[in-house]
Amino acid sequence: MSVAQDMPLRIGVFDSGFGGLTVLRALLPQMPAAEFLYVGDTARLPYGSKSQATIARYAVESAQFLVAQGAEYLVIACNTASALALEDIRASIDIPVLGVIETGAASAAAISKSRDVLVLATDATVQSHAYARACAARGLRALEKACPLLVPLIEEGWTEHSVTEQVLRIYLEEALHAAKKDGISPDTVLLGCTHYPLLRPLFERTLPASMQILDSAETTATCVRQDLEARDLLRPDLSRQDLSRQGRLASVQAASSLGGEEASPSGRCRFFATDSIGKFRLLGSRFLGHPMGAVELMDLGG
Amino acid sequence: MSVAQDMPLRIGVFDSGFGGLTVLRALLPQMPAAEFLYVGDTARLPYGSKSQATIARYAVESAQFLVAQGAEYLVIACNTASALALEDIRASIDIPVLGVIETGAASAAAISKSRDVLVLATDATVQSHAYARACAARGLRALEKACPLLVPLIEEGWTEHSVTEQVLRIYLEEALHAAKKDGISPDTVLLGCTHYPLLRPLFERTLPASMQILDSAETTATCVRQDLEARDLLRPDLSRQDLSRQGRLASVQAASSLGGEEASPSGRCRFFATDSIGKFRLLGSRFLGHPMGAVELMDLGG
Repeated sequence: MSVAQDMPLRIGVFDSGFGGLTVLRALLPQMPAAEFLYVGDTARLPYGSKSQATIARYAVESAQFLVAQGAEYLVIACNTASALALEDIRASIDIPVLGVIETGAASAAAISKSRDVLVLATDATVQSHAYARACAARGLRALEKACPLLVPLIEEGWTEHSVTEQVLRIYLEEALHAAKKDGISPDTVLLGCTHYPLLRPLFERTLPASMQILDSAETTATCVRQDLEARDLLRPDLSRQDLSRQGRLASVQAASSLGGEEASPSGRCRFFATDSIGKFRLLGSRFLGHPMGAVELMDLGG
Repeated sequence: MSVAQDMPLRIGVFDSGFGGLTVLRALLPQMPAAEFLYVGDTARLPYGSKSQATIARYAVESAQFLVAQGAEYLVIACNTASALALEDIRASIDIPVLGVIETGAASAAAISKSRDVLVLATDATVQSHAYARACAARGLRALEKACPLLVPLIEEGWTEHSVTEQVLRIYLEEALHAAKKDGISPDTVLLGCTHYPLLRPLFERTLPASMQILDSAETTATCVRQDLEARDLLRPDLSRQDLSRQGRLASVQAASSLGGEEASPSGRCRFFATDSIGKFRLLGSRFLGHPMGAVELMDLGG
C-alpha cells in the first residue's frame, strides 16, 4: 500500500442505509486517530428484500467507491451485505474486509457458556442463515429469529413506546418457545441488526436477566480494533492513539475533553449517501449519537 | 395506435412492489375482457424513502418497459410514483396514463359533503402533499396523515392483530386531534396507499361510523373504466364485455361462472418483477386475492 505512514488510517464503513452509523459510533472512540468514510446506499435500501446477486452487485460498487476514496480497511456494517456479499466484496478489492456477522459470532463464542445463542435479525439475514453458519464454525448453536417490525418501529422513533415493547415481547416469546422445543438453551442474545442498539434499554428490560446481550455495533468495533492491531495497521506515530489503548470510556472522555472539532465525529468522518440526504442527516444523527456534518450525494447508478 | 381492434385491450399496471396488486384485483372484474401486464419494481422498492429525481427515473423505465410489451393504457398503481413522477411518465410515453392520487381525489370530491377529507398514506406520499393539491383542485380540503408502520405490519401479516389496531388507533387519534385544531371536519377517509385495502375490516371497526372509507384500489378501478369508456378504448366487439356493464359484483360472478382459467386472473395477467420472485409470489397472492401464475424476472438495471 502506498499510503504514507504519517497519515491517519482511513477506514471505510458501508451500510445500505444509516443503521451502520451505530457501528461507526462504536468505532470512533476505539480508534481516535483514524479517519472514517461512511457510505449509505440509501437510493437502493433496504437490501433485506433483494436477491443475493443484486445485493452483491450493490455492495461491490460501494466497496470499490470507498477504495477509490482512499479507504485502507473496510467494515461491512450491514448484516444483509455481510450475510450475502462478503466473499464477492473480498474478491473485488485489495484491502482487508471485516463484516458484522463474523464479528458477532466471534464475540458470542467468547462469552457463551451454554454454547447456545439467540440471534435476532431482519427477515433477510435470518433467511440467509449466515449467523447460524458463523456460529456453527465456532462451536455454537444459533437459534435465528426474524423481527421484521423492529426496524420500522425504530425509524418511527418509537424506541421507548409500549407498542414496541409488545412487539418485542411477542418476538421473544416466539423465539424462547422455539428454543425450548428444539432443546436449545441460549444464554446470550446477539442483536444481529445495526438498528437494534437503539432498542438496547428495551432489550435489557424485556430479556431474562440471565441472558447477556451482545450488539453487533460494539462487537464489531472491538474486533476491528483487534484485527488492525494484529495486521499492524494502527499507526504507531499518532499522538492520540495512546488514549485509545485505555479502552472505550477513557478515549471517549479524552476526545470530549479536546473540545471543538474533536468532540464531534464530523471532523474525521466523511458521509456519502446515494439518495435522501435530508432523511439521512435527520435519522443519521440519532443513530450516530451526534449531529452529522455534511452528507455528500454520490451516484452509483441504478 | 396500430393495435388490432379484435385483440383484447392491454392495460399496464405499475407499482414499486406488490401493493398495486390490490388495484389490479379491483380492475379485473371491471374489465373482464382486458389483458393486464403488471410490473413490480421490487429490486428498488420502497420508493417512499427516495428522491423525486430517482423515483421519476425508476418509474419512467418501468412505463417504457410496459409500452414495449404492448400496453395501450397505463395505471400508476403506486402512490409515491403518482405523487412524484406522473408528469415525467406522461412526457415519456404516448399512451394515456392515470395515477391513483387523481382518481382518489376525484372519488372523494364525488362523495364528501363536508368537503373535508382525511388522507392516510405513507410518509413520502404525505410529504409530497400530492393528495392535498389534487383535493384542492377539486374544492376539497385534505388533512394528510403519515402512517409509516402500517405497511410493515401488513407485510408481517398482522392485518387483524391487536398491535396493528393499537397503531391504527394512535394514528387516527393524532389525525382527528390535528383536524380539530385546524378546524377541519372530515366525513371521508381516503386510504392513500395500495397496501391499506388489506386493513379494510380494521379501518371499518376503528373509524367513526359517520366516516366513509374510500380505498384507492376501488376508486382507481372505477375511474379507469370511466376513462376508457370516455376515450372509446373499451373494445365493443368482445363478447364478455357486456357482463362488466352490469357492475362489479355481476362481472365477478360472471367471471367465476366461466370456470377454469377464467375464474383465476392468471390467464389474462402477466406479472413482471425486478427482483425477489419468490417473495413477490408469496405476498402477491395475498394482495391479489388469488394464487399468482408465473412471475417473470425483468432487468431495468440499477
